[in-house]
Amino acid sequence: MPTYKLTIAYDGARYSGWQIQPNAVTVQETLAQAMAVLLRAPVTLIGAGRTDAGVHALGQVAHFRWPELIDDLPRHLLSINGLLPWDIRVLAWDLAPDGFHAQISACGKEYHYCLTLDDVQLPFERGSSWHMRRPLDRALMREAAARFVGTHDFTSYANVGSSSVNPVRCIMRLDVVDTPSGIRLEFEGNGFLYKMVRNITGMLVAVATGKRPLGDIDRIFAAKDRRAAPMGAPAHGLTMLRVDYPDSAV
Amino acid sequence: MPTYKLTIAYDGARYSGWQIQPNAVTVQETLAQAMAVLLRAPVTLIGAGRTDAGVHALGQVAHFRWPELIDDLPRHLLSINGLLPWDIRVLAWDLAPDGFHAQISACGKEYHYCLTLDDVQLPFERGSSWHMRRPLDRALMREAAARFVGTHDFTSYANVGSSSVNPVRCIMRLDVVDTPSGIRLEFEGNGFLYKMVRNITGMLVAVATGKRPLGDIDRIFAAKDRRAAPMGAPAHGLTMLRVDYPDSAV
Repeated sequence: MPTYKLTIAYDGARYSGWQIQPNAVTVQETLAQAMAVLLRAPVTLIGAGRTDAGVHALGQVAHFRWPELIDDLPRHLLSINGLLPWDIRVLAWDLAPDGFHAQISACGKEYHYCLTLDDVQLPFERGSSWHMRRPLDRALMREAAARFVGTHDFTSYANVGSSSVNPVRCIMRLDVVDTPSGIRLEFEGNGFLYKMVRNITGMLVAVATGKRPLGDIDRIFAAKDRRAAPMGAPAHGLTMLRVDYPDSAV
Repeated sequence: MPTYKLTIAYDGARYSGWQIQPNAVTVQETLAQAMAVLLRAPVTLIGAGRTDAGVHALGQVAHFRWPELIDDLPRHLLSINGLLPWDIRVLAWDLAPDGFHAQISACGKEYHYCLTLDDVQLPFERGSSWHMRRPLDRALMREAAARFVGTHDFTSYANVGSSSVNPVRCIMRLDVVDTPSGIRLEFEGNGFLYKMVRNITGMLVAVATGKRPLGDIDRIFAAKDRRAAPMGAPAHGLTMLRVDYPDSAV
């Protein structure tokens, strides 16, 4: 059966996250409904990762299988965006190889977390950046970030509800990038546990604002207990940038 | 009487422009009302330029005169932002020299006009960038832009309602900057007539999409008639970046 890959961007503010759930409006449900209108039959979408309520995406990926080949994908791309609300856009609609699975085939993901450090936050950044009013030591934050890079058991940074039984993940890159109004944390990894990016961000902020010593990082890894680490960062600062697949899968 | 200078950012989407008018919510009125609550007396604000309905600002400037010196401006800055709706922010609140006038003292301004050229526009750009679906020749647009730089009579690019009697302005810089999703037109000039930036943008797009030949630019300047030039670009792509003052005025 032909498999199709969708690349999706959304402003998460109005949605209760990606994943369909009862009594809440989600991105997956909104997109599946629009797809069903377009294709005149129910569509089952599988997303690469469940983003939480309020989290944004610039490159979420989903797949669906369809009984026949769909002609003229560029025209369908235009149509689906005409049916969707303004805050969800399908950026690409491609035929994928047999067996492609948005979640299982994924070999890596990139997430960005934005922080505004200016005293006053611009209206345009308010929806997608955490406004941090406490003074923050960027050098210390970079030292802390470096300690998260590599392969670790991230149990202390995963909330209950993680779908994975294996808490070991590899972070390939965690950069603290200066922006005009603050900083952007760029996370690249082979996968992330439930709320892991926001929980690590919470720890980086705790270290950079002097609330936690740098040495706590190793101690918290060793504890393997979510309660050992500080509170996670709010959802609206987080954006899912990209999902990577091995060349063989796409 | 002490004079105060405010630097202001706003998302113009919800406002009928800067200037107070009956039966419409404007930025000037919203800000003046919040200032009156804070200072416990009516405040008369004079803005550097009237932005139209839907136009944004990152560096609008306004001044007001006050019978006495205001203590602790940093605390007042925090308070005024607490009183304002999220889409208006006061970025700076400074004591200005005697005689400072936000509009009359200004010697230059910068405006940016953003265009999305990708087939699909990201949700995050929708509020502040014009989505242009026609193919656009960037090289041709740069040639056209260069012809606007310098001192010209801009009558053909000014809508009726311009407060100025002198239609001659100097554009110091008009750059066509590539962005990830399209282009940004950066206008720097000693001043701009009513709707001049949007009307020039309309002409640049007309040339770059092949609707008007490059030679029309000189012809339209010579006509000194708004009807000679094509339609202006929509408001939401425009942002007022900065107002410049001579060192002596600030």
